[in-house]
Amino acid sequence: MLCTLDELASHGLSDLSVERIADAAEVNKTTIYRRWPTREALVAGALEYVMLDLDDRLVDTGSLRGDLLVLAEAVAEFMSQPSGRALARAALAEPSASAIAALAAEQLSRGAAVPVGHLIQRARARGEWKTKAPPEAALSMLVGAILHRTMLEHQPTKGPWLDGVVDLIVGGVGTPARR
Amino acid sequence: MLCTLDELASHGLSDLSVERIADAAEVNKTTIYRRWPTREALVAGALEYVMLDLDDRLVDTGSLRGDLLVLAEAVAEFMSQPSGRALARAALAEPSASAIAALAAEQLSRGAAVPVGHLIQRARARGEWKTKAPPEAALSMLVGAILHRTMLEHQPTKGPWLDGVVDLIVGGVGTPARR
Repeated sequence: MLCTLDELASHGLSDLSVERIADAAEVNKTTIYRRWPTREALVAGALEYVMLDLDDRLVDTGSLRGDLLVLAEAVAEFMSQPSGRALARAALAEPSASAIAALAAEQLSRGAAVPVGHLIQRARARGEWKTKAPPEAALSMLVGAILHRTMLEHQPTKGPWLDGVVDLIVGGVGTPARR
Repeated sequence: MLCTLDELASHGLSDLSVERIADAAEVNKTTIYRRWPTREALVAGALEYVMLDLDDRLVDTGSLRGDLLVLAEAVAEFMSQPSGRALARAALAEPSASAIAALAAEQLSRGAAVPVGHLIQRARARGEWKTKAPPEAALSMLVGAILHRTMLEHQPTKGPWLDGVVDLIVGGVGTPARR
């Protein structure tokens, strides 16, 4: 899957070559086709790999701020790499034009639900999650801010900027609804 | 510029035809080329048009929540249209591969600075902006969340979701830094 990410970064989705991926992975092309019959399935597989890797990194730090910082740093690190941006670009296509975009939407809702659900549950138990806003809105803000920063502003996500995003989310979810 | 947005939505950046845009706008092709010598310049012009239009819509509602809701609704409405997503997709390309992405990054920092600067100034004067987080982080969160929601999750941005995003940002910027 790392070879697929590298190929995606160097050649983009439209010029992706299963032959080059097989060479880099030192496997036979047919081995790849057996598991991932189409280019779309292969890239969706790479996305799934990335989501599972992210899942592995999420740990219980004992505070919402700590938990969100681990999540934010993992997403930011991934998006700082050309392969991360290339994968995001493949997922950002119109779903009607790309099977990957449709698979990405499904994986995002399914894959992110469990680990982030645990994070929110722990925060609620500690009394840190007071907002009535939909929890998925907070997650879209965290990941969306990093997408915006890396892919539109082309600015670094490290340091005070990422700390600021996490602070804003901690403050936001810690504020009870006033309406 | 509306014709450019329509053409971008129906044919994408790679198949964009200045001839079709000229036909739709009922002007001569040379009229377009005189002002926008390249396809990149034309699309960057469309982005500038969108930013100016957004600028026109931002009004002083008397509260940070109201001001942010106007901004969020304008961005969400734009991104709910195929032309909005097509323009975002053009801007999301690698800057090395696309002059539009580089122009977009420059326009985003320059174009958004003034109207959003006023919004923040008013909020500070009313005592609603207490965070030490960088103001641009709050803006990236708002726009980034809408990008994530429309282009990755493919979910509607209206109603409780958009209200929730605005609530989270109002709560976040209203929370003084605790570190």
